[in-house]
Amino acid sequence: MRTENAWYIRCGFVTNGIMAKRTYDPNNYLIPPPNLDQGLCKALSGVDQNGEATDLFVINEKPLTLYLNSREVVTMMTIGDHPRFLALGFLANQAMLDPDNPVTAVDFDEDLDVVVVRTKHATDYEEKLKKRVRTSGCAQGTVFENVMEAFESRSLQSIDAPLKTSWLYELTAKINVTPSLYLGAGAIHGTVLCKADEPLVYMEDVGRHNAVDKVAGWMVDTGTDGADKILYTTGRLTSEMIIKTVMMGIPILVSRSGFTAAGVELARQAGLTLVGRARGRRFVALSGEERIVFDSDPDEISEEDPRHQRKGAHV
Amino acid sequence: MRTENAWYIRCGFVTNGIMAKRTYDPNNYLIPPPNLDQGLCKALSGVDQNGEATDLFVINEKPLTLYLNSREVVTMMTIGDHPRFLALGFLANQAMLDPDNPVTAVDFDEDLDVVVVRTKHATDYEEKLKKRVRTSGCAQGTVFENVMEAFESRSLQSIDAPLKTSWLYELTAKINVTPSLYLGAGAIHGTVLCKADEPLVYMEDVGRHNAVDKVAGWMVDTGTDGADKILYTTGRLTSEMIIKTVMMGIPILVSRSGFTAAGVELARQAGLTLVGRARGRRFVALSGEERIVFDSDPDEISEEDPRHQRKGAHV
Repeated sequence: MRTENAWYIRCGFVTNGIMAKRTYDPNNYLIPPPNLDQGLCKALSGVDQNGEATDLFVINEKPLTLYLNSREVVTMMTIGDHPRFLALGFLANQAMLDPDNPVTAVDFDEDLDVVVVRTKHATDYEEKLKKRVRTSGCAQGTVFENVMEAFESRSLQSIDAPLKTSWLYELTAKINVTPSLYLGAGAIHGTVLCKADEPLVYMEDVGRHNAVDKVAGWMVDTGTDGADKILYTTGRLTSEMIIKTVMMGIPILVSRSGFTAAGVELARQAGLTLVGRARGRRFVALSGEERIVFDSDPDEISEEDPRHQRKGAHV
Repeated sequence: MRTENAWYIRCGFVTNGIMAKRTYDPNNYLIPPPNLDQGLCKALSGVDQNGEATDLFVINEKPLTLYLNSREVVTMMTIGDHPRFLALGFLANQAMLDPDNPVTAVDFDEDLDVVVVRTKHATDYEEKLKKRVRTSGCAQGTVFENVMEAFESRSLQSIDAPLKTSWLYELTAKINVTPSLYLGAGAIHGTVLCKADEPLVYMEDVGRHNAVDKVAGWMVDTGTDGADKILYTTGRLTSEMIIKTVMMGIPILVSRSGFTAAGVELARQAGLTLVGRARGRRFVALSGEERIVFDSDPDEISEEDPRHQRKGAHV
């Protein structure tokens, strides 16, 4: 039986205690992506194109039910790491946390797959849960109508944050070679919170909405401001990703994938710099171009090493 | 200003009345994918990595609200083609259509972005709408609990349908070079209903759940049986895709993307043949391998032409 552990070796997982050469050290992150030893994947047996038995590392997802105080809000399918961040980030990005009503506890029950966020006073979630909209594609699926009201009251226009193209190239190069579940098992999205040319917090999940919510939850938990940050995602730049980024107060969103028209429209409305199709030396910005500082010669940037190329045009 | 119409030319769209050489003719389909002239995309202006102005074709998505008789079920974000199929397929895949309560009309109001499915008798949707589960990743977002009951009552185990590897290679080759929104604008998912080595119905949407629901709606509308069909998707093989395929009675699901553990488990439970990472000569099957007939030598299959390579490992 052939096991696909070439993947391990190729992306620098340390089965032999030595990191591959072209790896960006996860210790450089405040929060690195999960690694294959955390039990978030399992090996499943099948056959390949030659009819030969083969084992494949596959991401495990499981339900996590979120309560706000005594009321059930939603059940999410997630890889299961960082339930605290996922819970806090989901609520923050849904405009369901109120600065005047602080969170007093986040309790995670691993056996029940339940996470409970408690606040000082009762919450008015019921009104907010009334109206759900099934969002696009690979999206969160449900957006509560009050989020749009919160979104429309926010603007990033006044944030004077540059995006140097040298940072952009540096960030994508580092993220591409960071050992991650994606490099180890595939079929997963990543979202990375960055500052200048440094990736800081790298979250992964089957749904990119969970990955971005986990970043948001980390920001809430640590009181981190978004104004001097850059958000990187492997996923498409749909309405939902734009709404979440604006809710997080981050003025710049970068993706290696493409755009949707509704996403671009919302980004322009909020003053969000939107960079898509960022691969190797190429990218396109369709909103907030004025923040971009062209301090690199694209011709001096190499195209991506095919071994580290993430896919993702239609993610 | 540079317009990205190299994309048009590359993928065989006929700005000059001549199809590119390596194109699979959309006229071979019962329902071909949409083309760029249908107003489902628009050109947006931005800048590229050189700071030069550029136009990009971007998919347009808009809300469509579905009513079952007089009750609102869900609002979907969609590219907007085939609202009738999307409505019927969504309801069928949610086990909300009952053979004993036939559909009498499907009314689409383009101005209101509303589609209404009417049935002979009243429906018990209210009970069914009670419990929603936010599903994984790039998934539909909401699965109603009754779907799981319907799923568990179905089995594809007894369907004696072969999957010849020669069909698999032929199908992926044809689909890859069919002019489509993906080849024209990117950032979109495709789902294709196939029979043996012939792709029949090719639907696209920002969300792969919409693309598969549109295929399901076409099957409902035309009374097409799934037992002798193969379903191809560009998206990951998550729980939701498995559930929908089983609801459609199709015994074989093929994807160029990867698996999740929960999806594999459901496929094995239902007796669904699950083939993933199908690119060029390679693929892996993790469920229902007994249906596969290895009638091709993989070494004689060429790797994909990079110009036609769809991305999609983490879609």
